[in-house]
This record gives sequence, structure tokens and C-alpha cells, in this order.
Amino acid sequence: MGATVTRAPRQINRTYEWIRLRAHALKRKASPLNLRKAFESDPHRAEDMSVRTEHVFFDYSRQLATDKTMDLLFGLADAAGLKAKIEAMFNGEKINVTEGRAVLHTALRQQDNTPVYVDGENVIPQVREVLEKIKTFSNEVLGGERTGVTDRKIKNIVAIGIGGSYLGPQFLSEACAAYAKEGMDLRFVANVDGHDFKTVTKNLDPAETLFVLESKTFTTAETMKNARTAKAWMRERLGDSPEVVKKHFVAASTATEKVKAFGIDTDNMFGFWDWVGGRYSATSAVGMLPLALYIGYDRATEILEGACWMDQHFRHTPFSRNIPVLSALIDIWNINFLGIRTRALLPYSQALDKLPAHTQQVEMESNGKGTDLWGRVVRYFTGEVVFGQAGTNGQHSFYQLIHQGMKVAADFIGVINPQYQVGEKTAEEVDHHQELSSNVLAQPDALAFGKSEVEVINELVSQNKLSPEAIAGLSPHKVFTGNRPSSVMLIEELTPFTAGALLAWTEHRAAVKGFIWGINSFDQWGVELGKQLGVKIRNLFFRSNADSTFRVDAARDDLNPSTETMTNAFISGELPR
Amino acid sequence: MGATVTRAPRQINRTYEWIRLRAHALKRKASPLNLRKAFESDPHRAEDMSVRTEHVFFDYSRQLATDKTMDLLFGLADAAGLKAKIEAMFNGEKINVTEGRAVLHTALRQQDNTPVYVDGENVIPQVREVLEKIKTFSNEVLGGERTGVTDRKIKNIVAIGIGGSYLGPQFLSEACAAYAKEGMDLRFVANVDGHDFKTVTKNLDPAETLFVLESKTFTTAETMKNARTAKAWMRERLGDSPEVVKKHFVAASTATEKVKAFGIDTDNMFGFWDWVGGRYSATSAVGMLPLALYIGYDRATEILEGACWMDQHFRHTPFSRNIPVLSALIDIWNINFLGIRTRALLPYSQALDKLPAHTQQVEMESNGKGTDLWGRVVRYFTGEVVFGQAGTNGQHSFYQLIHQGMKVAADFIGVINPQYQVGEKTAEEVDHHQELSSNVLAQPDALAFGKSEVEVINELVSQNKLSPEAIAGLSPHKVFTGNRPSSVMLIEELTPFTAGALLAWTEHRAAVKGFIWGINSFDQWGVELGKQLGVKIRNLFFRSNADSTFRVDAARDDLNPSTETMTNAFISGELPR
Repeated sequence: MGATVTRAPRQINRTYEWIRLRAHALKRKASPLNLRKAFESDPHRAEDMSVRTEHVFFDYSRQLATDKTMDLLFGLADAAGLKAKIEAMFNGEKINVTEGRAVLHTALRQQDNTPVYVDGENVIPQVREVLEKIKTFSNEVLGGERTGVTDRKIKNIVAIGIGGSYLGPQFLSEACAAYAKEGMDLRFVANVDGHDFKTVTKNLDPAETLFVLESKTFTTAETMKNARTAKAWMRERLGDSPEVVKKHFVAASTATEKVKAFGIDTDNMFGFWDWVGGRYSATSAVGMLPLALYIGYDRATEILEGACWMDQHFRHTPFSRNIPVLSALIDIWNINFLGIRTRALLPYSQALDKLPAHTQQVEMESNGKGTDLWGRVVRYFTGEVVFGQAGTNGQHSFYQLIHQGMKVAADFIGVINPQYQVGEKTAEEVDHHQELSSNVLAQPDALAFGKSEVEVINELVSQNKLSPEAIAGLSPHKVFTGNRPSSVMLIEELTPFTAGALLAWTEHRAAVKGFIWGINSFDQWGVELGKQLGVKIRNLFFRSNADSTFRVDAARDDLNPSTETMTNAFISGELPR
Repeated sequence: MGATVTRAPRQINRTYEWIRLRAHALKRKASPLNLRKAFESDPHRAEDMSVRTEHVFFDYSRQLATDKTMDLLFGLADAAGLKAKIEAMFNGEKINVTEGRAVLHTALRQQDNTPVYVDGENVIPQVREVLEKIKTFSNEVLGGERTGVTDRKIKNIVAIGIGGSYLGPQFLSEACAAYAKEGMDLRFVANVDGHDFKTVTKNLDPAETLFVLESKTFTTAETMKNARTAKAWMRERLGDSPEVVKKHFVAASTATEKVKAFGIDTDNMFGFWDWVGGRYSATSAVGMLPLALYIGYDRATEILEGACWMDQHFRHTPFSRNIPVLSALIDIWNINFLGIRTRALLPYSQALDKLPAHTQQVEMESNGKGTDLWGRVVRYFTGEVVFGQAGTNGQHSFYQLIHQGMKVAADFIGVINPQYQVGEKTAEEVDHHQELSSNVLAQPDALAFGKSEVEVINELVSQNKLSPEAIAGLSPHKVFTGNRPSSVMLIEELTPFTAGALLAWTEHRAAVKGFIWGINSFDQWGVELGKQLGVKIRNLFFRSNADSTFRVDAARDDLNPSTETMTNAFISGELPR
């Protein structure tokens, strides 16, 4: 008889739950879950491990998890105080502790009038006020009442921003392009590489162009450099009058003085707040201003409605049917217990092609931290590499490795009805959308169930294509081990509403992981050092600009010999010889 | 006194070398390499671990490797017979054993006339013949002598292809866009999603448009579907005459009969050969035809010259100074011995923004195999996940995780001189390119050397910004552990020549890994199963197209309940309720 271990109360012992999961994972390692058998032995698996809602369908039955796994994961969530942490976020508590800020992107799209307080002030009226401003402004521009310095209608919106001021709005813009107002064009300049500005502004008519500058602090190096270049570009073409900047530049920013100094009319500054983090800012003015100018204010607000719908689902649904929570718990299972630390996001929709890049930012800038909330070095993985592209393009690129190489977790997104009907549906032909969709339905099964050597050989023999010698040489290469985890998300149609729902799913999924890992998903100290060292190099460039004979010296300038050599290559314009 | 172990002859014992590397890695694990100390203690490290050539500079001094590591890796390369395998590839031996094919993309760009034989036939004259055809055709189109069915000049090239027939040409097209012929536009349709075709052909004048169909076998499902839609689109606008297809469609293909059946004049079919794999086809007609039509034949051939330069470097340089070999050996060190299985490719050049996607394909479709050349299941990792985007955009997205989360190997690419001069260089201001470049020079040091807690605290104190309490709360989050591996590649300018060199670097790097892992990097059986299951779903769609009441039945149609539910959602057009 062993000693009796008293079980600690669930909700107070995250480590205990973590260790139970490790034990469970070790057991699973000894007798791995076989997805074929799991489906065969449990006819309800698909139903039990999927969630039906009004707007999305989520199926995680092909994950390497059982009821027991899920139970243990829910135990971990409880022990980590997930429910309370979610509430704290929605209620405006300052959960971004290192920066002393609330995290309230959910308030940006809240549809009812429940007050949300930060420092004793209800933020909802402020949110509504900015939205009203965006409504008026975008209606005037789209109606042709508000023009640039000529009386020609503004047709081109160029949003200048980087990181969160780029990836989220760009994702929304592509997802909603089918709803663009006739004749309107929305482009983005993000990279400080002059190539980006040159390419985007090529063939643009300045009189019909409005620049939207997106920078909370109005100090982001890349954005301000591009903004100044845009100002010079505009002045060169339309003249030096202050009206040129006033009529052709607006800002999503919080830095009134700097915006004014740039020459922008502060009536055309659309604010947001320190409780909106960059990568969570797509539903603030950062995303809503360019989107309203592109698809019209009314359709743009559907993005907010869709995001709010997902917010409510996230806040109020029990974990066992809560899509962001389930997604995040499965990620944790894959990352921390199965050692699967890369995730492919595979939307079968060209209009969702930018969702992987946005998700990559949300996940990899929010998580991937080295210390927990209390400043302790974490001893477990706190993030994953997210990558992907629209199917079927990805199939012709990186799926080889996903099917037969290392295990990568895959998230498929399927869209039931297309934005454009292209091709014919007949008994002998599928239209483009069916061709596309046959793949999103096939790939998860291929990953999960694989193909055994016996099946391969039987097939080759039945096709009567190959000699026994050839079969022996070829068949091992055609084997698929299967048991590669994936989930599928379905939406009925890609609209501003569902784009907003997908956006909020992505945001909450990352946050849940941070809550459970006990890290701060809302700061990003990890980007500071590179910036700091960049300033140092920039100072050396200043000196070389002033004096063409200047060369860097490792000892004098406190650089290592490698950086010395490379910096001098940039200064001299020639490769090191 | 222990037993004396007799060392096996290097060249015949790959396993022995592998085990030596494991032992070395274990020793390193016990006393990890500290990059700060490594640079301090060896002032020659930067010089020793970098390669200077006429056209590129490669610095791997920030990898977690020592002289000893490199020696052991060279030993592994020798034991794997790398030199002989490289020669076998260049000489046209059928090293793609599962498909019985030679692998001769190097012959596509060979600049001299040394014969290369496949099945007793010299392939070089065939290559030259196709290039001559491309030269004549592209000169006629660009000169306005060859038009569509009207006498208006062709201005828009739309390349339809997917996978290797898309990612390589697209990378080259963006890299060389600065050299485009006045008024010429090159676009790509890859995804079978009708959205792609609709968006790309929006506002195109059919009379001025030429479609280039890129499919070796002329059977690729996505490409043929888009091709048929393009034909219908063109006929709707310019009429049903066979001349419309003849004058507005050309093909890079080897399938003469199918090309003819499509309606294309076989004089306008530009061939390639079974010894050109899809992902290695960018320097065949697949890439050269659209590129010659876009930047002119002469500049397009500079891509071949640059690729050939890298080919020669790869074939003839000792491994210790051979850039593709060094890159690949370091990848193996990271993947198999340090457990770093994701690699970020970070070109600091917006025009190289598509290189990561192309590299992702070359790496993840070539490698990531489950069996070795002899059909044995491999027990080691045979690939890595490659992702990335142009800097500085990536810095504002996923660098947080790379700096403070899990270790990811990083490859930086810097371009010394820009394609466009934007902004001013003064003693107080850097131009756009210097702003960009200060980052590519700073990030590798930030990753390698990090920032210790003592440095963080000293800095905070010296800035006199924070109370001791605040410092205690904040400082742990601002620590960077460093010792994160990276390499830097520099080129002097982004030209067709250097784009070709980067392309060949990517190709050879992947091949070297395959040679050492003993896998076939030139087949891709891992994509077959998904295609096969896709056909099954497509057949169900045929039935639903013929009969609107048809619904899938899991038992009857041999599907699992999850796929049944989801397929019926697509058939009914509604989410599962």
C-alpha cells in the first residue's frame, strides 16, 4: 500500500495540474493515441470534439487528445484562474503589469452600453465619440464633400504604419476587399525601405490621395520616416501650402502635439488609448479609419459586431465549448506536452492570405517571453512559431514536410460560400470554390489518418503499375505515418462580420495562453535591445554622412570586428574584400 | 586507462561522425558556448567565420559553433560523400532515384559549353534552343511586333502557375521589379480560389494581356482550372476565334499534345525537361519566360549568370569557404544537434520580401522526408520550418519571441546599396536605406550578445528613471539571454545577377542537407495523399452538383463523421447546426 496523496484544491495549484498533464503525456508517449482507432472506437468523437455556434464551427477531433486530456487541460485552466483573468481583462483591470495598463481592445467593439472603467472613467463614451468622428469623416470623403486641395474626389487611401498598425488593418482590408466602395483603393506602406514607398506611390494621383498615418506615439522610426517622405512627395506635387498637409494627411494617434507639429489638423486626428496595445489595435481607429474609408463606415462597423460576438462567446461560454479557450488549451498541449512548437495556419481563402502574418504577430509578440509575471525565469516554452499561407498555395509549397517530416500543428480554415462565383458546378465539373474546398476537407484526414505500407502496396499492386521490385523500391516513400494534429474552423461566408470574429479568436487565443503560462502577453520588452543597438549604428551613419572618409573602428566605437566590417561595407558602399 | 578506440576511416563512416558530433554537442550542453566570450577571447573569430567573395559576403560568426564544431561538420560531410554527390548532381546522374531522374537545374544556367549528358544526350544545346526562343519571342512582344488579336502592344503578363511555377518566378519578379521595362506589368495567379483570378484580372485590358501558363505536365489541377477560366475570360471579351487563344496564351510546359489541345500554338510553347524539378525550375522557361517579358531578355539572362556564378562557387570551392555548404552544415548543427528546428529568413529589403516564401518551399518540399534513399525510416529530423518576412517589418511582428522566447535560427540578408535613393543623408539624418540597414546591423548583435540583468539595472539607474522598487519589478523583463544563433549574408546591390545568386544559394543549401541526411531532396511523395483524398471529395461534389438533395453519408461514402459533417456543410451552403 503506497502513501495516500491528498489532492490539492484544483483552483490553487497550477503546478500540480501541470505535473498531472506531464504524467498523462508520458503515458500517451508509451502508448500513443492512434487517430484512426480513436475515430473507429468512438463514433461520437467528431461530435464531442467540435463546437457549433451561430457564426463559426470549430472541430478539434483530429488533435492528439482524448477526453482525459481535455479534462486535465480544463483543470489546468481552472488552477491558473483563467476565468478570473478573463474577467479582469474585460473589466479593465491593469493586467499589463509591467506597463501599468489595462487591456481593453474588447471595449473598442462592445455593442451595448455597459460601462467599463479605467481609473474611474467609463471608456465606452470615448470609444463611441471616435467612431462617430470616423463615421462623419469617412462619409464626407466617400460622398465627395471632403476633398484634397482640389475639388477632385479622394480615391486612394495610403495607410502608413508598421507592426500592429499594419498587419491587422492589412488582414481586414484584404478580407473585406470584395466590399470595397466603387473606385476606392487602400494601400499600405510599412517598410522603411524606400522601395516600399516608391512602389506603393507609383502612378498615384496626389490630388486624389489621402495618407493615414498610424502611430500611437507618433515616434515609431519607420512610420515617421515614411510620413515625412510622404509629406515631401505631396508638397513636391501639390505645393508648399499648409493646406496640402491639412487636406491630404490624417492620423490615428494619441500624440496631439506631435500630430499638430507635423501639420495635421487635429480635427482629423482619431484617437485611441494606452489600454489598446499595438497588435490588438485593429478594431481601434488604426483599423477602423482606413477600413471605413475603403468599405464604408457601415460595413466597417460589422467588423466590430463580429469581434464583439466572439468576445461575448469567449467571455460567457463554458470552457468545454469555448473556441478561443479550446484552441489555446490545445496549443498548450501541443507546445508544452507533445513538443510540437510550430503551428501552420492554413486558410483556404485567398482573401484570408494575410491572416497568418497577423496571427504570427499576435502570437509571437504577445507570448514568447522569458520571464513570468513575477519576473521569474520561466522553465517551459511560452510560445510557438506560427506561419502559413492561403491554401491551396501552401500545399504546393511546404506540405511535404508537414505530412512526412517533423510534426507541425495545423489549423485549417474553410469558407463554405465564396465571395465570387467563378466556374460552373456540374456533374462532371466543380467550380473554383469546390476545387478549393475539396482540399480543405481532404488535408486534415490525410494528416490524421495517413497511409500504411500495406495500403500503399495494395494500391500499387491493384493499379498493376509496377513490378514487385519497383514496389519494394518505391513503397516506403509513399507511406504516411498519420497522427498529425489539426483543427478545422469553418465560416459560412467571409464578410466583415466573420473577419472580425476571426480577428477576436486570434487575439483571445494568444491571451489565454499567456494567462495560463503566467506571463504578460501585453508588453514586448524583447524588441527593445535591437532598437537600442540600431540607434548606435545610426549614430555612426550620421558621422559617415558628415565625413565621407569616416570609417568605423571596433575598439573606438565599441563594436565587435564582425559588425565593424559590415558597417564599413555599408558606409563605403562596397562588399568587404 | 580506458580502451583505445580505433578511429574508422572518415569517408566511409557517416554514423561515426554523427556520433562524434553528438558527443561534442553534449559537451557543449554542459558548458554552453557564450558568444560574448567567444568574440572576446578570439579576435579572429569574425574573420575566420566569414567568407568574402566577389559577389556576396557571408558571416556565420554568431552561430553557436567553434572551430571544433566546424571540423566535425566537415568530417560528417566527407563521410557522407558530399563532394561526390555534388559532382553526381552536376554531371546529370539520376540522383532522384525514386523517379529515376537527373537533377540538372544547374545546366539551365551553365554559361560555358561543357557538355552535360542525360541518357547519352548533351542537354546544353536543348537549353540554349529554348533560351533563343524566349529571346526572340520576348523581343518581339516588347518591341510591339508581336501583339494580341488587335495591333495594340502587350503590356500585361499574367503568369498562371502554382508551387514551383509560382514562388520562384514571383520572388525573381519582385526582386527585379526596379528593372521592369517601361509600361510592363507582371502578375501571378496561383490559388484556385476564384478570388485570386478575379482580383488579378480586375481592370486588365484583355487586348493588352498575355497569359503564360506554367505547368510541366499541363495537368496541375489548380493551374488548369485557372487556365480554362482565363480562356473563357479572354473569349468573352475578344471573341471565340481560335486566334484569341493563339495570340494571348503561351505555355512553359513539356506536354505538347495537351498544350495543343488547349488551343495554344506549339511554336509558343517553351519547353523544359524531366530533370528540372518544380521547385528548382525558376531558371527554366518557367521563370525566364515571364521575366524576359517583364525586364527584357538581356537583363533576365543576368539572373542565369548570377545563379551560375553561385553554382561554380558551390562546385569548386573547398567546403571551409563554400557558402551553400557552410550554410547547410550549420543548419544541420542547429537542427540535429542543438534542437533548433525553425529558421527565420530575414532579408532587409522589401524587394526580397518573397524570398522567404520561395525558400520555405525549396526547403520544406525538398527535405522533411520520413525515409532515406534506401527506404529506411529515418530516426533523425530531416528538415526545418522556414519562415520570415522583409525587415524591418518582421521586427515589429515576431522578433519578441526570437529574442526572449524559444531559440530560432536567424538568417539576415543585407543589401549595401539601395535600388532607389529615398531621403537625405546628413549629419543629423539618415536616409531610408540607412535607417533600414542600421537594423540589419544591430539585430544579429542583439540576438548574439543579449543584455544581462546587471546591465539592465545599471542602465535604469543611470537614466534615473525609476525607483528601486520599479527597477526590481521591471528589470527581469528587460533581460536578454543572448546566445541566439544567426548568420548574415551581404550583397552589394540587388540586381538580376545577385537575385540569381541568392536563388542558387537557396537551392544548393537544401540539396546539401539532403545529401548528408541520405534522403532524396528531389521527390515529394508527401503531397500525394492529400491530392488523392481531394479527388474523393471532388467526386462527392460532382454528385451534389447533379442532385441538389444529395448529402454525404459517412458509412456509405467511407468517410469519418467529422468529414461527413463538414462536407455536407459545403454542399448545403450552411454551417452545421
